[in-house]
Amino acid sequence: MLKGIAASSGVAIAKVYKLEMPEMKIEKKTANPEEEVAKLKAAVEKTVKDIEAIKERASQNLSAEELAVFDAHLMVAQDPEFIGAVEGQINSDNCNAEYAADSVANMYVSMFEAMEDAYMRERAADIKDVTVRLKANLLGVEIPDLTAINEEVVIVAYDLTPSDTAQLNKAYTKGFATEIGGRTSHSAIMARSLEIPAVVGCAGILETAKHGQEVILDAIKGDVILDPTAEQKVEYEAKRVAHEEEKEALKVLVDKPSISKDGHHVELAGNIGTPKDVEGVLENGGEGVGLYRTEFLYMNSQEFPTEDEQFIAYKMVLEGMKGKRVVVRTLDIGGDKKLPYFEFPEEMNPFLGYRAIRLCLDRKDIFRTQLRALCRASIYGRLCIMFPMIATVNEFVEAKAFFEECKAELIAEGVEVSDNIEVGMMVEIPAAAVLADQFAKHADFFSIGTNDLIQYSMAADRMSEKVSYLYQPYNPAILRLIKMTIDGAHKEGKWAGMCGEMAGEPNAVAILLGLGLDEFSMSATSILRARKMVTSLDKKEMEAVAEKCLSFETAAEVEAYVESVINK
Amino acid sequence: MLKGIAASSGVAIAKVYKLEMPEMKIEKKTANPEEEVAKLKAAVEKTVKDIEAIKERASQNLSAEELAVFDAHLMVAQDPEFIGAVEGQINSDNCNAEYAADSVANMYVSMFEAMEDAYMRERAADIKDVTVRLKANLLGVEIPDLTAINEEVVIVAYDLTPSDTAQLNKAYTKGFATEIGGRTSHSAIMARSLEIPAVVGCAGILETAKHGQEVILDAIKGDVILDPTAEQKVEYEAKRVAHEEEKEALKVLVDKPSISKDGHHVELAGNIGTPKDVEGVLENGGEGVGLYRTEFLYMNSQEFPTEDEQFIAYKMVLEGMKGKRVVVRTLDIGGDKKLPYFEFPEEMNPFLGYRAIRLCLDRKDIFRTQLRALCRASIYGRLCIMFPMIATVNEFVEAKAFFEECKAELIAEGVEVSDNIEVGMMVEIPAAAVLADQFAKHADFFSIGTNDLIQYSMAADRMSEKVSYLYQPYNPAILRLIKMTIDGAHKEGKWAGMCGEMAGEPNAVAILLGLGLDEFSMSATSILRARKMVTSLDKKEMEAVAEKCLSFETAAEVEAYVESVINK
Repeated sequence: MLKGIAASSGVAIAKVYKLEMPEMKIEKKTANPEEEVAKLKAAVEKTVKDIEAIKERASQNLSAEELAVFDAHLMVAQDPEFIGAVEGQINSDNCNAEYAADSVANMYVSMFEAMEDAYMRERAADIKDVTVRLKANLLGVEIPDLTAINEEVVIVAYDLTPSDTAQLNKAYTKGFATEIGGRTSHSAIMARSLEIPAVVGCAGILETAKHGQEVILDAIKGDVILDPTAEQKVEYEAKRVAHEEEKEALKVLVDKPSISKDGHHVELAGNIGTPKDVEGVLENGGEGVGLYRTEFLYMNSQEFPTEDEQFIAYKMVLEGMKGKRVVVRTLDIGGDKKLPYFEFPEEMNPFLGYRAIRLCLDRKDIFRTQLRALCRASIYGRLCIMFPMIATVNEFVEAKAFFEECKAELIAEGVEVSDNIEVGMMVEIPAAAVLADQFAKHADFFSIGTNDLIQYSMAADRMSEKVSYLYQPYNPAILRLIKMTIDGAHKEGKWAGMCGEMAGEPNAVAILLGLGLDEFSMSATSILRARKMVTSLDKKEMEAVAEKCLSFETAAEVEAYVESVINK
Repeated sequence: MLKGIAASSGVAIAKVYKLEMPEMKIEKKTANPEEEVAKLKAAVEKTVKDIEAIKERASQNLSAEELAVFDAHLMVAQDPEFIGAVEGQINSDNCNAEYAADSVANMYVSMFEAMEDAYMRERAADIKDVTVRLKANLLGVEIPDLTAINEEVVIVAYDLTPSDTAQLNKAYTKGFATEIGGRTSHSAIMARSLEIPAVVGCAGILETAKHGQEVILDAIKGDVILDPTAEQKVEYEAKRVAHEEEKEALKVLVDKPSISKDGHHVELAGNIGTPKDVEGVLENGGEGVGLYRTEFLYMNSQEFPTEDEQFIAYKMVLEGMKGKRVVVRTLDIGGDKKLPYFEFPEEMNPFLGYRAIRLCLDRKDIFRTQLRALCRASIYGRLCIMFPMIATVNEFVEAKAFFEECKAELIAEGVEVSDNIEVGMMVEIPAAAVLADQFAKHADFFSIGTNDLIQYSMAADRMSEKVSYLYQPYNPAILRLIKMTIDGAHKEGKWAGMCGEMAGEPNAVAILLGLGLDEFSMSATSILRARKMVTSLDKKEMEAVAEKCLSFETAAEVEAYVESVINK
């Protein structure tokens, strides 16, 4: 039995499918440049088609956010500088195309890997992924085709690339186990999104597991059992069935309201990245959209999206949600999110830098386009506009005044704008939480962004492995900041929501209910489990539980206590 | 009249001394490599001697922290890689030494300037500063010698380099005005440290001012008046005298206690970087050392300082302070402070990364050496040990337990260790301020580090120009966090201090007195002004003032209100 990290809950019993890349031996040969350039062009063309085909297949399962990686791959595969450099080497060196492609790619990869900027380092992974495909096409070697799997398997691999996960066929792929990775690695996120059981960071699995061997994957606990006994198979089959039944049972909650046992109603909403994601929210019983991340409109584009392009997207979401509340977050770019067509200042600590509302207030031309598009779309549903990264009351007041200006401008132009747009803010900067009672005099609502709030409150970048242990949603200090935010809102008769990952964790839901949170926004696939939690709890009881949590010293104490209360 | 930023308070009336670099025209010539290499070596030797001489002169006025820049310059001037590259070009190109030095230096500068890391970009400035001197020595050109000034002047320059400021003779340099820079630029910090009136960021001054012209520098308001009228000279001479008298009047407070009008005593202490700085603290009436930054011991070294080296430094400070309280902060390295002999992980946001206590708890070997040295020194005075960047109670408990372990180890070895060492922590991470009441159960004292606390609470890197407007000590959210910290300490009978820049700002002192702060630690030169403020205030009145400050929405409201109360 091997131990790993349970990254996507579930149990699978099947045969091992060992995903291994074919050996691609690249030797330098003297060759006719003209022929090699022709070979290169054909291989590039095939590579582009391959990626487009993968993207197409993947688009049935993945959200726009998840699909963005293929656009990056297509950009690499078609990059004139990259292709030009390979051609250049073929011509100057009279060498074979695969050798030239390999050496140019290696140079690019080591260049990008040496960069300080994490965003640029990710580009190295993209180049590697694309180059493997390009070299295979040049050598006429087949890359394992995961779509060709036609029996039930558990895939075992060193790691899964975005291209790999995009090709997984859910009918046959019962789960996967990878040698490396953590709960927030790409493959783990994909597994949860696809609802495939997965164990990651399972050291030793590649060496131990054999292709075709029987395996039990317990992705509830993080265990991988090779060559299980008959008793083990019976035991885990029961566990699998129980888990499936539990999931099935959740489905009856789709059309149920989110009301606690003592009659307190909260709103359970979904986070989305594109209009397409609306469907998933409704299918999972979402009562609204609590966070529409508009930056994907900007990131999946070659230039700033126009007012009309934005208007169309916002209108689709508002119409799709049929009058349910839609909270649209204005552009949150900067930090680790860059745009290919906009130059950001070089900063030592981009997470503490020029991003989100700071950029929008500085570049009102960019901001205006989005606010106008939002105002125009407002008549197609129930729109809430939310400003990210608000640190001071001045910033909120300035942003809101600018919104009013854009709105007045449109009305003067004869355009219809809704009279019921709520204008609120993210609470993700500690200063905003501490001063929530003052912000609440100006904002119509708050939405707590726990990912950033925790990061800043603990002064720990959760992307930095060395300090990721400080990412503690259950730390009493974080809970107190959440309480200040909720109390601040309620004091002025406003509502407070949350749109960070924490809002979808069942045990956190219990505490947040007790703290008085009004709206919980999460991945669509977490909504039903959260609803089950809310409907099984007594709010009054949870108020006492939350109060006690605030008096602890450490996150571990809070977690142990809540676990003991919930599963008593 | 020109407007700039008042960077170091005071008034000066004198003649303009325009600091301009000689033109150094570098032409490529064919030359005898052997002769050129010999020329290079002689010039390098002279450059090293020049820098050593400047450092020596500077050491009379500057602290170890400020002198560190010259060690960086010496390293560049003696860098075998740099010198080797110049020699290489002379030999391969048969060119003159100054041409080779110039082109190698340009290559290095553009390489370093392109780096993401601000620390590395600063190295570019060092290379430039050293190369100017090296080229001057190669060309036999004189660089203006500021030490040769023998009449009263106001220096006008584009900017002052560290070598420039180090050479300023206070007897004749009555002030300076620079074209560029802000309140926290190098030349501004130096001006305050040297107590020379300075106006920085004075756009247009270089073009307008003429060498020898009469000038009035009003570095209280930030005005520069060229060719003043007779009346103006009378007016500003009166202002200068008044300012000097006020400074003189502060001196009577050196031996006075820091007691408010209604009899409340607080401690006013000094921040130091090296044992040498103790003198300045005592001369300025410091009642203790509130922050001894031990990282300079590590930064001004070629390898980790040994236990004995550290012991000697700590003993000197403790003995120097003659039984007054000395708060030693354990190693706060990482973030923007690197060590030449230790490799830090590459991080996207080093301020949110592996630094200070996080590194020390991970690398107990490094931590042990320091704690042992501190324990050994403890019997020579009144020692307080303070851990930086504490985010969770677990971290503090672990660090304190490790201190106890080191102490027990020494006692077992027969070494004497004081029984009265206080063990406390910096409160500079928002989570620590919010949970102060819990931390106070374990820590003997708190010291609020406002520089970082503000940075994290506002999620704004104050080094990033684009967001430095968010560095707001008077933001009500910051004041509330300070209050939580002080109240948390008092609840458990512990004391709370502050060692950020804010503790030395007179108007902040008034609010902090009202909030109940027990100890204020600041640059030695700020102590007397702070004492004047404390002794002129009524604590009870300030409590009401502070309470009102907590209810405001913005920093501007707080500042205006306090100003109106203090100067009523």
